Amino acid sequence: MIIIGEKINGSIPSVAKAIEAKDEEFIKDLAIKQTEVGADFLDVCASVKDEIELETMKWLIDLVQSVSDTPIAVDSPNAAICAEASQFCNKPGLINSVSLEGDKIEQIFPLIADTKWEVVALLCDDTGIPKTAEQRIDIFKTIMAQAKEYGIAPSRIHIDPLVEMLCTSEEGVLMILDVMREIKKLEPDVHITGAMSNVSFNLPYRRIVNMGFTVLAMQAGLDSAVLDPLDRDLRGIIYATEALLANDEYCMDYIEAYREDIFGIQK
Amino acid sequence: MIIIGEKINGSIPSVAKAIEAKDEEFIKDLAIKQTEVGADFLDVCASVKDEIELETMKWLIDLVQSVSDTPIAVDSPNAAICAEASQFCNKPGLINSVSLEGDKIEQIFPLIADTKWEVVALLCDDTGIPKTAEQRIDIFKTIMAQAKEYGIAPSRIHIDPLVEMLCTSEEGVLMILDVMREIKKLEPDVHITGAMSNVSFNLPYRRIVNMGFTVLAMQAGLDSAVLDPLDRDLRGIIYATEALLANDEYCMDYIEAYREDIFGIQK
Repeated sequence: MIIIGEKINGSIPSVAKAIEAKDEEFIKDLAIKQTEVGADFLDVCASVKDEIELETMKWLIDLVQSVSDTPIAVDSPNAAICAEASQFCNKPGLINSVSLEGDKIEQIFPLIADTKWEVVALLCDDTGIPKTAEQRIDIFKTIMAQAKEYGIAPSRIHIDPLVEMLCTSEEGVLMILDVMREIKKLEPDVHITGAMSNVSFNLPYRRIVNMGFTVLAMQAGLDSAVLDPLDRDLRGIIYATEALLANDEYCMDYIEAYREDIFGIQK
Repeated sequence: MIIIGEKINGSIPSVAKAIEAKDEEFIKDLAIKQTEVGADFLDVCASVKDEIELETMKWLIDLVQSVSDTPIAVDSPNAAICAEASQFCNKPGLINSVSLEGDKIEQIFPLIADTKWEVVALLCDDTGIPKTAEQRIDIFKTIMAQAKEYGIAPSRIHIDPLVEMLCTSEEGVLMILDVMREIKKLEPDVHITGAMSNVSFNLPYRRIVNMGFTVLAMQAGLDSAVLDPLDRDLRGIIYATEALLANDEYCMDYIEAYREDIFGIQK
């Protein structure tokens, strides 16, 4: 499972405060903690006014790189910012994200074509988030065709099928699981990702819904996720599910992660 | 989901001590607590020497019935004890269990034929627990054929496919999930049950493995389970999974159970 650590994001109030106050230690601490528990990428999202987004991204990326060697997920709804901010990174990371909206793909794919950068691709377009599985699969196929033109291998692409809120879209989760299975069938090497906490929006005790969804999604092919790597039970159930799905011989990774105190009762 | 509360079982050290000391309040308290959180059956297993098993079952069943109207799951490896102890119950409950071992079915099926009693049937026989999915399905078919002879409807039968320990049987969980799916296909009205904690034997932080397995099993058709109904996170993830699998319109049951304090941060 590829873990994309979500904690450095200006949409989280404590992070917004740290950005506002230029609190370097707060940001560095989030980078160190997520690195220590084995995040594969550290997501960096400024979530500030357009005028200061690029300079804020640079400040955040420089801070993260001063304390961590973990690759960065450059996260902005603005593809131009993703493109420019990626230049601040010491090593290839993950662009988060493109979709069929606007000219995002035209801005990002040429830039990463001959690199080791990976990219998150959301299954939406200029008309928004499609209602049906078929429409999402159509978007998926278009994205993959464009990736092929630029020579971007499926293994560098993380498809986010965009799960909806469970509380308003009862059948939506089953549909997303079907989309995941279909994508894995069409293109086994592509990664399937998602923001694990979106599904539980507006429900009480969200953590348990997120855990349940993560297990179901892993069974359907999810192998990458944007989440809080310090959420011990979420990490634990991911290790457990890898073992339950026969991806962890003799539960060695599960036991090792437990010994490394990534999950379990806090020591 | 049909919840079979597992807490009154002499194989649990504190319960063994209470049985030994004839501590009525301890047993009654376990019955009351499991009833309060909505268990559908209260399992009663003496786990004592053969000579005193029947009298101990009577003592336990009488105590449970003095404080709870919840039907009892009469639990013994000895079918004759199940048969005799069922006579102490005020109302039909669940026989736990039969299998193709010995003459268990011949002892139990005639007894419950024209009643509302339900029964747990384990997929094993005199040769032990089968290694393959095919053998388990064969046992399932034999059990169902015998149930049909006695006019016992599939909806009164809880099939336990017998999950093995994850730590020694890596592919075993996937096999059990396949068996569950196949059974639901062959006989949609039969219940599928299991002891949720067996899978995690010998692993650290078992609760998280049990939770992951429960989600996967529910996706494969599990709709009944022997578990600790006071395990708040396990109850929570079961309610969450019902909603995720589109069995809970507008998450009403999930939200209601949260309000009733069955899961979530303890109030």
